[in-house]
Amino acid sequence: MQTTTFQVQGMSCGHCERAVTQAVQRLDPQATVHIDRASGKVDVASSAPREALAAAIAQEGYSIT
Amino acid sequence: MQTTTFQVQGMSCGHCERAVTQAVQRLDPQATVHIDRASGKVDVASSAPREALAAAIAQEGYSIT
Repeated sequence: MQTTTFQVQGMSCGHCERAVTQAVQRLDPQATVHIDRASGKVDVASSAPREALAAAIAQEGYSIT
Repeated sequence: MQTTTFQVQGMSCGHCERAVTQAVQRLDPQATVHIDRASGKVDVASSAPREALAAAIAQEGYSIT
């Protein structure tokens, strides 16, 4: 379990936060996700590889910068 | 069945459109909903009273102007 930070664009509301959280947790049900929507900072504590987490977030339609 | 138009503030993304649509259809499963997110215009064809539709939308956290 390690924490990775992503910078994510396009999360405009609480539904978006939930969509990103759920995308990560579908990949890794044990993951914990903390989102600061104002800054777009997404902290993920997970044993999944960073690339897989990034892909899960991107598949929801958000850009990682 | 009549069509009512609401002017709704705060729908920022596709999730919001879905939330508004689902709120209306929980009240009236036969309702049809068309949303133009850019303008905030929500057209609802439903036999439910306008006040009840407005309340359902407001309960999702959106302002009707």
